[in-house]
Formats: sequence, structure tokens, C-alpha cells
Amino acid sequence: MKIITISREFGSGGREFGKRLADILGYAYYDREIINAIAENRELNEGYIEKILENGLLNNYPLKFGRTFSYGTVMAQHNMTKILVEQQKVIKDIASKSNCIIVGRSANIILRKYNPLNLFVYADIKSKIERCRKYGDDKELLSEKELIKKIKQVDKGRARHQELLTDIKWGNKEGYDLCINTTGLEIKELAPVIAEYAKYRLGGNYK
Amino acid sequence: MKIITISREFGSGGREFGKRLADILGYAYYDREIINAIAENRELNEGYIEKILENGLLNNYPLKFGRTFSYGTVMAQHNMTKILVEQQKVIKDIASKSNCIIVGRSANIILRKYNPLNLFVYADIKSKIERCRKYGDDKELLSEKELIKKIKQVDKGRARHQELLTDIKWGNKEGYDLCINTTGLEIKELAPVIAEYAKYRLGGNYK
Repeated sequence: MKIITISREFGSGGREFGKRLADILGYAYYDREIINAIAENRELNEGYIEKILENGLLNNYPLKFGRTFSYGTVMAQHNMTKILVEQQKVIKDIASKSNCIIVGRSANIILRKYNPLNLFVYADIKSKIERCRKYGDDKELLSEKELIKKIKQVDKGRARHQELLTDIKWGNKEGYDLCINTTGLEIKELAPVIAEYAKYRLGGNYK
Repeated sequence: MKIITISREFGSGGREFGKRLADILGYAYYDREIINAIAENRELNEGYIEKILENGLLNNYPLKFGRTFSYGTVMAQHNMTKILVEQQKVIKDIASKSNCIIVGRSANIILRKYNPLNLFVYADIKSKIERCRKYGDDKELLSEKELIKKIKQVDKGRARHQELLTDIKWGNKEGYDLCINTTGLEIKELAPVIAEYAKYRLGGNYK
């Protein structure tokens, strides 16, 4: 199978990029679907899992919450471990089924032995704020300061998630085949160009 | 003018990549030529300038050389500053003449206000060693350990050179439009694909 993983900074257009790339190449596309699949298997609330995955699995709970919080923490971490294991199974399952693009969820690391093409999508902070304002769910609720904080927090969670699996740091170019700066670009125009690169790297058989 | 700058890790094939890209796009190509031009203007020995530029301009000379070395150090730093200024002039001059590709010499920073397309070319250490063995001038003279040391030293010099001009760190993806991992790739096959990306970014008028 041909596998493309897309890691991305929050607000850089990685999800749209992944979808368009999948369309052009005729690949299956996954991001939140993976989470849904896990949720189905584990009968856990999807939003809960989503939150855990975005925040990382070994989140350091602030000590100031004191002892009363400890049992909850232990349970949360227990659930997190289960989710991580399940997530890996789902990702490997997906990758074995058909050519696919997987956005996020450290799929670049989880699928390493299948030799995926690993892309990283990033942008400058101004561009990410603009994108969040345009497409984000909570675009009208957050101040600029809050938005910047959110962007940083989400990316920190992603970095932490990858840290559980490998020493290769999230976002360091060494871990990717191509790092794409989307600042000021239309994803719609960028995707076909990068699709050509993907074809060169992964070889024939496209619709 | 359309300008592409290529920054690259030593041994990653950046120079060959730049030449092939220039060929495909019909752009003028520069790397060592810049140095030659400086040398001509300043009537300084080319090898000397090359060495200074590779090692960075404000190299910290070891104190153990003692006082007798101090005058030389001061003079060397004086010359370095002159060379840096001259180098910037030459690079700006080149960029104003025709569409061009400039490899190295912090041209991405020097030409910032002309909005160049900035590429970074890198590879894993194994791949860089192989490339040095295949194409390097001193391939048969250095042990693997010495070669790794050389690779690191050259890149350190490049990072230091850029440090003189900007806070943007050499090799951090944020400073580039596209970061290209050449590990295991044939530059000859990679270049036409990236040329398509360059056309998309810089627009029409190619031979």
C-alpha cells in the first residue's frame, strides 16, 4: 500500500491539504475518522477521546489540584494508554486496506516500518491566526491572544503525543520527507503541485 | 526578477540540485562564482575568502594561541567584515540582473526584501556520508569519523554565517518555503519535480 502521512501545525491548512491531496491521488483520507473508529470499538465518548489525543496522553496534571484529583488522574492515564494502543491498531488496519492519507495522530511514527511518505505542513503565526479566524469553530469567541495560546497548546499536545512513541521530535524536519510552508498560499493551488511530488515518490497507478 | 535561494546541509546534494533546477528553469546559477567575484573586487586570495566564509565571520579564535595571535585575529575580523559587506553587494547585484538561483551564502536573508523563494535541502547523516564519499574532493583522505566531523563543522559555519545577519536560525524550517529531504533520492529525478513547485510559486515565463 502507498501511505502518505501529514503532520501539521494547527491552523496551517493541513487538513484541507490532506483532503485535496487524497482527492487528486484517489487515496482514502483519514483524520477524525480514526478517532471515530476507536470510539466505536471502545464505546467511549468521541469528544472525550479527541480531547485526550489533542492534549497528549501523559499530560502533566498540575499538582495544585491536590490529592482529591489523583484517582481521576490515574484512571485518565489508564484510559489514555488503552486509547493509544487501540489507536495504533486502527491506524495499522487502515494502512493495510488501501492507499491512504492519514492526517495527524503520529501516523508517520506508527507506520514507520511501512515506509510512508511523510509530509509536514506549517505556516507563520499570522497566517495561522487568519486561517483559524476564517475556518475555526470558535473563531468569534477567542481574542487574538487566546487564539495564539490555543494554537500553541494544540501543537504542544501533538508534540507530546509523538514523544510517547519516539525520540524523533514532532516538527523537526529530519522526521519528514518534505516540509511545506503554506504561509500566504491557497491550499487548492498548492495541493496539485505537491501531488506531483507524491507521485514521483510513490510511483504510478493513479486515477 | 525571480530569485530562488537554496540553503543546504553539507553532503545533501544542494549544489547539484541547484544547478539542475537552474537548467530546467533557465535561471542563472551562482554559488562559488559569488566568491570569485568578491575575490576579484577585493584582490584577495579566493581560497582564503572561501575558508573564512565557510568557517563563519566571527569565529572565536581559541585563547590558547595567546597574545601573539591577537593582532592577526583583529586583522582577520576586519577583513571578514569587509568581505561580508562586499558579498552582500555582489549578491544583490546578481539578483538584480536576471532570474537566478543562489546556493548558500545566506542569500535567503540578504535578499529577503526581494521576496525570494527559499528552499532548504537536507538529508540524513548516512546519506550525506555516502554523497561525500562519492563526490567529495577529499573522499579518500578522511575516515568516517573525520567525515562526520567535517560535515558538522561546515554546517556549523553556515549557521554562524547566517547568525551574523539575522535572528532566524539556519536550518529551522520556519525560514524556508520548502524543506526537501534528499535521503535516498536521485537529485536528477527530484529536480524536475521541485521545478514544478518553483513554477507554481514564481509564475510563468520559462524556456
